[in-house]
Amino acid sequence: MSANPSALATAPASSRIAPPISASLWLNTPAPLTLDQLRGRVLVLHAFQMLCPGCVSHGLPQAMEIQRTFDPQTITVIGLHSVFEHHDVMTPAALRVFVHEYRLTFPIAVDQPSENRSLPRTMHAYAMQGTPTLVLIDARGRIRAQHFGGVSDLVVGAEIGRLLVERVESPLAV
Amino acid sequence: MSANPSALATAPASSRIAPPISASLWLNTPAPLTLDQLRGRVLVLHAFQMLCPGCVSHGLPQAMEIQRTFDPQTITVIGLHSVFEHHDVMTPAALRVFVHEYRLTFPIAVDQPSENRSLPRTMHAYAMQGTPTLVLIDARGRIRAQHFGGVSDLVVGAEIGRLLVERVESPLAV
Amino acid sequence: MSANPSALATAPASSRIAPPISASLWLNTPAPLTLDQLRGRVLVLHAFQMLCPGCVSHGLPQAMEIQRTFDPQTITVIGLHSVFEHHDVMTPAALRVFVHEYRLTFPIAVDQPSENRSLPRTMHAYAMQGTPTLVLIDARGRIRAQHFGGVSDLVVGAEIGRLLVERVESPLAV
Amino acid sequence: MSANPSALATAPASSRIAPPISASLWLNTPAPLTLDQLRGRVLVLHAFQMLCPGCVSHGLPQAMEIQRTFDPQTITVIGLHSVFEHHDVMTPAALRVFVHEYRLTFPIAVDQPSENRSLPRTMHAYAMQGTPTLVLIDARGRIRAQHFGGVSDLVVGAEIGRLLVERVESPLAV
Repeated sequence: MSANPSALATAPASSRIAPPISASLWLNTPAPLTLDQLRGRVLVLHAFQMLCPGCVSHGLPQAMEIQRTFDPQTITVIGLHSVFEHHDVMTPAALRVFVHEYRLTFPIAVDQPSENRSLPRTMHAYAMQGTPTLVLIDARGRIRAQHFGGVSDLVVGAEIGRLLVERVESPLAV
Repeated sequence: MSANPSALATAPASSRIAPPISASLWLNTPAPLTLDQLRGRVLVLHAFQMLCPGCVSHGLPQAMEIQRTFDPQTITVIGLHSVFEHHDVMTPAALRVFVHEYRLTFPIAVDQPSENRSLPRTMHAYAMQGTPTLVLIDARGRIRAQHFGGVSDLVVGAEIGRLLVERVESPLAV
Repeated sequence: MSANPSALATAPASSRIAPPISASLWLNTPAPLTLDQLRGRVLVLHAFQMLCPGCVSHGLPQAMEIQRTFDPQTITVIGLHSVFEHHDVMTPAALRVFVHEYRLTFPIAVDQPSENRSLPRTMHAYAMQGTPTLVLIDARGRIRAQHFGGVSDLVVGAEIGRLLVERVESPLAV
Repeated sequence: MSANPSALATAPASSRIAPPISASLWLNTPAPLTLDQLRGRVLVLHAFQMLCPGCVSHGLPQAMEIQRTFDPQTITVIGLHSVFEHHDVMTPAALRVFVHEYRLTFPIAVDQPSENRSLPRTMHAYAMQGTPTLVLIDARGRIRAQHFGGVSDLVVGAEIGRLLVERVESPLAV
């Protein structure tokens, strides 16, 4: 279901304050991260599932290239492992192996499972439709773009460029 | 360890009779397969691990293209899930999800774990050095090529072409 | 000489007013274009040679994708055929065939040859080091980036995004 | 017309003796080549036009990889510049620049123009439908495969493999 983007939930919101990340676990970071603490940076939140072909072939390589291209103190990439299917095999232990084998080095949150839904909490709060989903959060903590499925580097680059200008021009607003 | 081909064991043998496939489970086939029963066909045995990046990006797509390109009654592709690391997360249940998500349709054997080695039995019997490994077995059941890591379509194609001619020219020998 | 970017001339300037385009001929436009007349738009000037491998494999496809991705009234792509070698075979007649076969649809200026240099006039005025070269000109007519050789879509996208914000924020300055 | 394979002439023949190459000029060889003189080798004849996008993006890179992959004394790659359109700009002088810029090193024949047809002589003799066309000629000088447009490395590899076996098995027939 996740390889070819298809409908899962409602349409993405825009320009609202990004909901907090509900994580049951963090990898690649000494301590859990919060959006509040990252205010002032442009955030690239990449939601994926380790066994989603489109995430492995396109989404994660794009997230890694964003991480390599920009200054991490300005543009911070965060992975979000949002398992909404096959929960029994995409476990935190399996994710650790995946992260090691694919050499992912950005911080990754394991999206907190819900008690009464298949969708984990952060995925639900962002109204994501599936994986991969790329969310751009500006320096003031607002969702400015949310892409389900593939999105070109040109488009993501242009969006990042916009947020970088705003960040510099409105430092006090941050 | 498996993304970039590196040494795991001894060098591959050649032109010897292919050892039997020791499988604890078969997927995508109504009944277990044996090499004896497939004698007369050219076999492409593709050994992989579901969390090996080189297998996912190159090895498996190549195996799928071989399956699509040639007559399956003449060239039969068989997958071999040879787990030699991270056994706890590359389970048969996880493999089933992987096979479903990546739409693999050729028969896949789960390589039989060894009691006293990390290498599973078939991988050991073929002296494979890691994953991905592509083994070409001729119509008489002999190993004719064994490639660890990436190998170009041109080279694999040329090897398949050779075995196809021999198969037609020596039907009695089969 | 042009396939792998290498030094040709002096380093590119930045943030200066873009020199005018000296063209001996224009293709894909009913009338010659001038930078003055395009003031208020972000311009992507792509300098190439039709027999430069890096231009054909990377530069021109990137220019075409920029053209497809953004509103042409906001971001205008202009090709510049800057022949600095093999002048006898990269003629305007040959360029017309090339443009037809490769289905290029953005306006293309044939850079005006110099009388006493191998470098054509526009290429010289911009101090380009070879082909492909991508120049970004802001809505006020200033050179904001100049890339010789390959540059990633993420980087070009981010630069375009910056110039788009400025364009909207400073309409009077335009 | 040449970018996307489309009908130009009649269907390709097969298993007949390959017609001689009619060349007005040879590049990358100290002396003209003849098929008779190359008898005993498997030949890969790649017909292209320097301004044909499909030739530049797929056909020529495949010919170059065949040249790199196999022993040139066994598999010999020959280019054939078969101009059937835009004759005035795809001249021998322009081809020399193209060959230099794209670093083609295999021998290339310039297909002899016809007096009363747009199709050059060799292209006509082989009944080629356009460019790129890949022709495989066995060690006995017979056409064994002829592909107009793209053909996968797996398929070409398998055909080459077949011809290599025949070549070794029937040395006297050569």
